[in-house]
Amino acid sequence: MRHICFLLIGTAAFSSGQVFTPSNPAALAARQYRQQHERPIVDEFISLLAIPNIASDGVNIKRNADFIAQMLQKRGITPRLITVPGANPVVFGEIKTPGATRTIVLYAHYDGQPLDPKEWATPPFTPALRDKQYEKDGQVISLPASGVRFNPEWRLYARGAADDKAPIVAIMAALDAIKSAGLKTKSNLKFAFEGEEEAGSPNFEKILAANRELFAGDVWLSCDGPLHQSRRQLLTFGDRGISTVDLTVYGPRGELHSGHYGNWAPNPAMMLARLLTSMKDDNGRVLIDHFYDGIEPLSESEKRAVAEAPDMGPELMRELWLGATENAPRKLAELITVPSLNIRGMASSRVGNQASNVIPATATATIDMRLVKGMKADQTANRFIEHVRRQGYFVVDHEPTAEIRLSHPKVAWIVRGHAENPHRLSMDLPVFQDVIRTVESARGPTVKTPNSGGTGPDAAGQTLGIPEVSVPIGNHDNNQHSYNENLRIQNLWDGIELMAALLTM
Amino acid sequence: MRHICFLLIGTAAFSSGQVFTPSNPAALAARQYRQQHERPIVDEFISLLAIPNIASDGVNIKRNADFIAQMLQKRGITPRLITVPGANPVVFGEIKTPGATRTIVLYAHYDGQPLDPKEWATPPFTPALRDKQYEKDGQVISLPASGVRFNPEWRLYARGAADDKAPIVAIMAALDAIKSAGLKTKSNLKFAFEGEEEAGSPNFEKILAANRELFAGDVWLSCDGPLHQSRRQLLTFGDRGISTVDLTVYGPRGELHSGHYGNWAPNPAMMLARLLTSMKDDNGRVLIDHFYDGIEPLSESEKRAVAEAPDMGPELMRELWLGATENAPRKLAELITVPSLNIRGMASSRVGNQASNVIPATATATIDMRLVKGMKADQTANRFIEHVRRQGYFVVDHEPTAEIRLSHPKVAWIVRGHAENPHRLSMDLPVFQDVIRTVESARGPTVKTPNSGGTGPDAAGQTLGIPEVSVPIGNHDNNQHSYNENLRIQNLWDGIELMAALLTM
Repeated sequence: MRHICFLLIGTAAFSSGQVFTPSNPAALAARQYRQQHERPIVDEFISLLAIPNIASDGVNIKRNADFIAQMLQKRGITPRLITVPGANPVVFGEIKTPGATRTIVLYAHYDGQPLDPKEWATPPFTPALRDKQYEKDGQVISLPASGVRFNPEWRLYARGAADDKAPIVAIMAALDAIKSAGLKTKSNLKFAFEGEEEAGSPNFEKILAANRELFAGDVWLSCDGPLHQSRRQLLTFGDRGISTVDLTVYGPRGELHSGHYGNWAPNPAMMLARLLTSMKDDNGRVLIDHFYDGIEPLSESEKRAVAEAPDMGPELMRELWLGATENAPRKLAELITVPSLNIRGMASSRVGNQASNVIPATATATIDMRLVKGMKADQTANRFIEHVRRQGYFVVDHEPTAEIRLSHPKVAWIVRGHAENPHRLSMDLPVFQDVIRTVESARGPTVKTPNSGGTGPDAAGQTLGIPEVSVPIGNHDNNQHSYNENLRIQNLWDGIELMAALLTM
Repeated sequence: MRHICFLLIGTAAFSSGQVFTPSNPAALAARQYRQQHERPIVDEFISLLAIPNIASDGVNIKRNADFIAQMLQKRGITPRLITVPGANPVVFGEIKTPGATRTIVLYAHYDGQPLDPKEWATPPFTPALRDKQYEKDGQVISLPASGVRFNPEWRLYARGAADDKAPIVAIMAALDAIKSAGLKTKSNLKFAFEGEEEAGSPNFEKILAANRELFAGDVWLSCDGPLHQSRRQLLTFGDRGISTVDLTVYGPRGELHSGHYGNWAPNPAMMLARLLTSMKDDNGRVLIDHFYDGIEPLSESEKRAVAEAPDMGPELMRELWLGATENAPRKLAELITVPSLNIRGMASSRVGNQASNVIPATATATIDMRLVKGMKADQTANRFIEHVRRQGYFVVDHEPTAEIRLSHPKVAWIVRGHAENPHRLSMDLPVFQDVIRTVESARGPTVKTPNSGGTGPDAAGQTLGIPEVSVPIGNHDNNQHSYNENLRIQNLWDGIELMAALLTM
């Protein structure tokens, strides 16, 4: 459900990939079943991946929905395509368990990020197995014969391999394993597979609101996103909110010769640099007044979870060629639980070979502020604007006229962009404690983050009042949202065991 | 000779254009002659402007040179084309005056700035007369019949109309006027018309060095550039120097998701903003250590000239939509006599609709520093680099490797660009005092600037040891270097009178 865009390419495996033996009987059964059915599981996955899944491609989206409906049908689940006018359908299925006192909704999405096929090493909808990561010279190999085991470090390359068709296939294999082992479900189960998440879920809340009963449940498990970089299972109980702004400041009406007017005409690039510098100190602390006001502190459990999260800092720094980090020595897991102010981009005239000897006419920065529970997106944008005012700027919400520019020494045009409030639920909720126990019985020690660093709508919570937790299965280095998206085979195997445990909790 | 790029469009006439009556007899004779020959003078100008004159267009450059050679020939001057291998020819001519004790070299250039014809309102090499500025709805009109006077506010549109074919035509008309009035030259005169100034004069110093005797003289009059914005005649005795740098700072190896890594991965745009802010205070003073060291103070004459220069500030601010200026209340004429630091452009990822939710990987600024006499271009670049070091950066002169980036908290790649030393000659030099007196007898009160705000090579001074002063004739709002370049007819008339005075001094 969250919009994640790991651009990390070629990340090393940070852990040894040692195999954990589950204490969960369904997970163990799933392992046995999978070891005997690796090829058919991957075959079904490949068939699903071969159907192009860009949300705007209605014809193929329909083919995906139909294929997934058939996957449910094969498992004895009556599929339904739920939609509203103009929307791609949510594929819905349900298992009613006699005597169940709990309903679990499993969410995933079957559409994928838009792409440019030219950037891909192999065509995005012709799934290719490689013997290791493409970035590490992984070569395309044939599928092993039926009955021959896969090397768990192999990777399957295709759009949607990780984000987010893998959980759908894992759920189906887990259902098969449960049935084959004669295990029973204890809860009612619902499956909701969205078809336009990567287009920003423009209709998902509408679909939920129009079908409250259908999607009702006690807990919503969002099977989307990647695992922690340590390869441990990740559980996430919320998202940071966001407030974005485009900020433009003004110099002369048009570019001026830097010789003839330099020192006299104000330089908007320098004005912008000064303004941006005023927003954050050397240590990464945001200097906007009241920016941190009202933040709800982490609970004891949340603090403990953050403290226990492995510190991937040194490995990530090596990977990212970083000689230092912001807010050091605080670790990443902690820093995503506090708000941030980030410059997405900055532009003023041209640089390098394209530069001319000018004083630029304007300078623009696009900024995102990530918010944590207790902050409001609109209020944060207001505080940002107030900060710019305090730096002496006359702030307008439209392109300033000549009159405005002439009558104020400094003018800033601020356009509010994306605004979404943060959300975070207590990991102490009994249903979440059940989920955590179940997940750990299948996958061993987890990483629990109070909120994701990214931003996502809290559709289940906001629309249905259902608590949501994210239980992803993809590898962290899956090139999600980028070219050469891939799933590490072991992540699919682990995902099947995880799903088997969750489906029987 | 200087690389000027007035991007001022639609500038109002700041003065009334009142007609001054020259005390100089040659200027007066030129006025009488011109009033009787307006159409043939403009016809010759149009013929010259109709020949395309981009320096890289060798065939047409040759046509220009031949045409100008014929113009000299018509005036009884034997033309010579002086060149070195690979260069466009300098058209050279000479008038030897018996008993003369002084040699004056008049310089102009016949090539024009490269252009994109699509940007022009009328084709750049089809000269068009307009009844006023194009930006003020000036319409194309027919040439008046021979004998009918031109409105002096009409404008002739073509590439090179102002920069820099006008002085060539003005000199020719002045020669005709002098002859017609039976006046005599008192000095030896030399004419040097360059054919690749707008390409950066790649061969001019070589041509001079190879022909020292030919170009030798007592004073070099550079007839290039525009007049002061007050429309008063401008005299300029030097240029600012320049030192440019491209400065790149680094964040993560590739763009990172701003949610997942914001607050932890250093943001290079913010680093650049902080670094740029450290270079200049709120009042426009450059904060680089020793930046202002060694500057040669203005002489009393220079200070007086600066004090007497009309302050065009309020009009320019209105024109440029500026509500404030840097270094206020100091005026532009003063500020170009001190060094400046200017951001030409700034870039980091993308902004506005193009922005993505990333922490950028790099941020780059291109910076120019304009230097005044006593400063050295190389030394200024060194001081800039030292300043960046003092802000905690490890500075490299090549793209930094992973090893370098991993072993330093902050890394900056600095590429040195254009470096040219400043030059400025004393306006008290006797030959300059003669020039000033002569110019003022033809054109009334002048504006004298110790140096241009821009940068130009001191070819005559460096190569030949000849003192050079700039005496331009173009209107300040000529769209030089841009599309719709134009010459105001009155500026041509004034230029002819100015040239007549200079040719007979």
